[in-house]
Amino acid sequence: MALVVQKYGGSSVATADHIKAVAAKVAKRVKSGDRLAVVVSAMGDTTDDLIALAGSVSSTPSPREMDMLLSTGEQTSAALLAMALQDMGISAVSLNAFQLGIATDGRYSDARIVDLDLTGLKERLKTAEVAVITGFQGISPGGDVTTLGRGGSDTSAIAIAAKLEVRCEIYSDVEGIYTCDPRMVPEAKKLSHVVYDEMLEMAAMGAKVLHSRGVEIAKKYEVELYCGSTFSDREGTMVVSALPEWLEQPVVTGIAVDMDQMKVTVENLPDGVDLLTRLFGCLAADGVNVDMISTVSAGGRTSITFSVVSGHICQVRTSVRQSLEGIEGWTLSDDEAVAKVSAVGVGMKTSSGVAARFYSALDGAEVEVLCTTTSEIKISVLVPRDQASAAAKALVSEFDRKESD
Amino acid sequence: MALVVQKYGGSSVATADHIKAVAAKVAKRVKSGDRLAVVVSAMGDTTDDLIALAGSVSSTPSPREMDMLLSTGEQTSAALLAMALQDMGISAVSLNAFQLGIATDGRYSDARIVDLDLTGLKERLKTAEVAVITGFQGISPGGDVTTLGRGGSDTSAIAIAAKLEVRCEIYSDVEGIYTCDPRMVPEAKKLSHVVYDEMLEMAAMGAKVLHSRGVEIAKKYEVELYCGSTFSDREGTMVVSALPEWLEQPVVTGIAVDMDQMKVTVENLPDGVDLLTRLFGCLAADGVNVDMISTVSAGGRTSITFSVVSGHICQVRTSVRQSLEGIEGWTLSDDEAVAKVSAVGVGMKTSSGVAARFYSALDGAEVEVLCTTTSEIKISVLVPRDQASAAAKALVSEFDRKESD
Repeated sequence: MALVVQKYGGSSVATADHIKAVAAKVAKRVKSGDRLAVVVSAMGDTTDDLIALAGSVSSTPSPREMDMLLSTGEQTSAALLAMALQDMGISAVSLNAFQLGIATDGRYSDARIVDLDLTGLKERLKTAEVAVITGFQGISPGGDVTTLGRGGSDTSAIAIAAKLEVRCEIYSDVEGIYTCDPRMVPEAKKLSHVVYDEMLEMAAMGAKVLHSRGVEIAKKYEVELYCGSTFSDREGTMVVSALPEWLEQPVVTGIAVDMDQMKVTVENLPDGVDLLTRLFGCLAADGVNVDMISTVSAGGRTSITFSVVSGHICQVRTSVRQSLEGIEGWTLSDDEAVAKVSAVGVGMKTSSGVAARFYSALDGAEVEVLCTTTSEIKISVLVPRDQASAAAKALVSEFDRKESD
Repeated sequence: MALVVQKYGGSSVATADHIKAVAAKVAKRVKSGDRLAVVVSAMGDTTDDLIALAGSVSSTPSPREMDMLLSTGEQTSAALLAMALQDMGISAVSLNAFQLGIATDGRYSDARIVDLDLTGLKERLKTAEVAVITGFQGISPGGDVTTLGRGGSDTSAIAIAAKLEVRCEIYSDVEGIYTCDPRMVPEAKKLSHVVYDEMLEMAAMGAKVLHSRGVEIAKKYEVELYCGSTFSDREGTMVVSALPEWLEQPVVTGIAVDMDQMKVTVENLPDGVDLLTRLFGCLAADGVNVDMISTVSAGGRTSITFSVVSGHICQVRTSVRQSLEGIEGWTLSDDEAVAKVSAVGVGMKTSSGVAARFYSALDGAEVEVLCTTTSEIKISVLVPRDQASAAAKALVSEFDRKESD
């Protein structure tokens, strides 16, 4: 008998029928001899509905009460899944954050888990075959409900698996991790294995299968992490610390695309880090979320291109002008319709010529490159938004590798 | 500054607009200088919706998971009311059963409160002007959510008020306690005061303003209990241990009507308590809920009339026949269309001639009396259902007394 942690997202428990299907999947697993701690999100649009309800009684609902409100969503789905399991003859018990010892730092709406006392969970699993656990929530030092922010249920599941030192399985409506989003690039292939660091880069770049917070915990505690489809038995993807030896190490594991970026360029600034500090300090103070930053300096003059993932272009222009007040000679240009396309792979560290292949593929697809940034395991470029799909296709094709489908 | 416990029922918090109206009422009270512990029920039909949802994932949801599920309803309305209050500039904090120390006996779906540790509540009320409390729930010795069954939120509010030794105000869509249901008898008058024992009899007989469990606690701890309308400022009814001296003690305080009864008569049985034990034991085992029982014995033969508040007449007939198997000579008759009409008043104890006035009023209204039972402070009769309204009118008129409107 093995103990396994599973997590089912909101779309997997969206309706009573979905919950019954999840229960059947869990029951089958129990009958094969495992015990399960199953972490659930709120049903489908429940969280959005509750947020709307809050908005109808208060213009600025306090984070504390918002967390108290939202946490009911997971409690509802946890109780329903436990009932559905019992109906199939499985002994199941639902547990919320008060019952579980999930201690957080107390930051409402974006709490971090600081301690996990799973004595109670282990005790329950002596008699129950399945413990159904409310994801996304923990208790503050003062005894308040705190939610874990975006990707919170992934974080709950992976943290519990880390503490229990058992395997963690994340189920969603996607079959696993692909070399690229299959809706954009139908040729994209499902990966049998991804390395934690690659997954982190891909998650941070908008691959929605796994949230990067959860992956960070998985990496730190080397959790055996699996991503698969709730309603399909096809093999998903393992997220691991190193690829198995029999698997050829690819140079590029995946291509990630983020369609919603804006590009801003400031040219002909005098050199000096203080100006960059002023510029990005001002943008941050105005709540502008900056993603890529690329600077080029020559002849005592600096040009900066950066991308913005949220906020309005007028706001960005105002912030830039304010921050550079008193400086002469610079020009500002922007483009609201750009996308970020990135190639990710731990193989890049040890492989040469990746950049050349990368640019060559884009060139062959007649994609215009507006800006480039790189890290050890990633190359990202900004391209015109209407060329993003062609860019992704060209890169998938260039870095195609043998993989399970 | 006084501390007050208030309770708002499901219809008072049915929508976002209702919640805002309740918040405005509470805010006004806070601004007058009071601090409040406000107990709320789940919004409108939430509980029914959750029960339906449970039914769609399980044919027989377990009581433990049902309680876990249902308790989300009060947590939702508590968080929303706290938000609405904050939006009006009131410092408010919502608290659920885990956060309040409401300990129960652990009986799922019908738990009794066994201990209240209100240290946490008092601590919160040092900084918050209002604590919004989830009604209807407590925590079992094993740490599970348990709901308090029918009338649970009244019970929560009155128990908290008893422990804090403060006034308790129960708000609903009814303006107070009337001498009779005003929808049936428009001449019914609102009572300024009712004695606990009268309220107990009236609550047990279907007056829906207050649940008898709560009244029992109020009586035991002499809680200053007020029932009024959520959305009207008109004066409601005080439930007290004894009427104020300036108020004339009426013989009859109220007339209660329960329209849903069935009458069953068994005639010509041989005398003997063992037969009654067999009869009512068999009915109880078959889940038949018996209310009134009246027996008359003469010449060695006994006749029994009893009323049934739930169950099907065929079931009742079968139960009776089974229980009396082997006994000869008796006959069974029944009537599915009867109602119970009761006069309640602590003044009966010290007043003579009440029965005569009672029967005379019914006689004057040409109401047929099918059965009578009495207690120290109550006379109840079964009447044909279509005569119940006439009976109530006649009794209200007979026992009319000077009261606030």
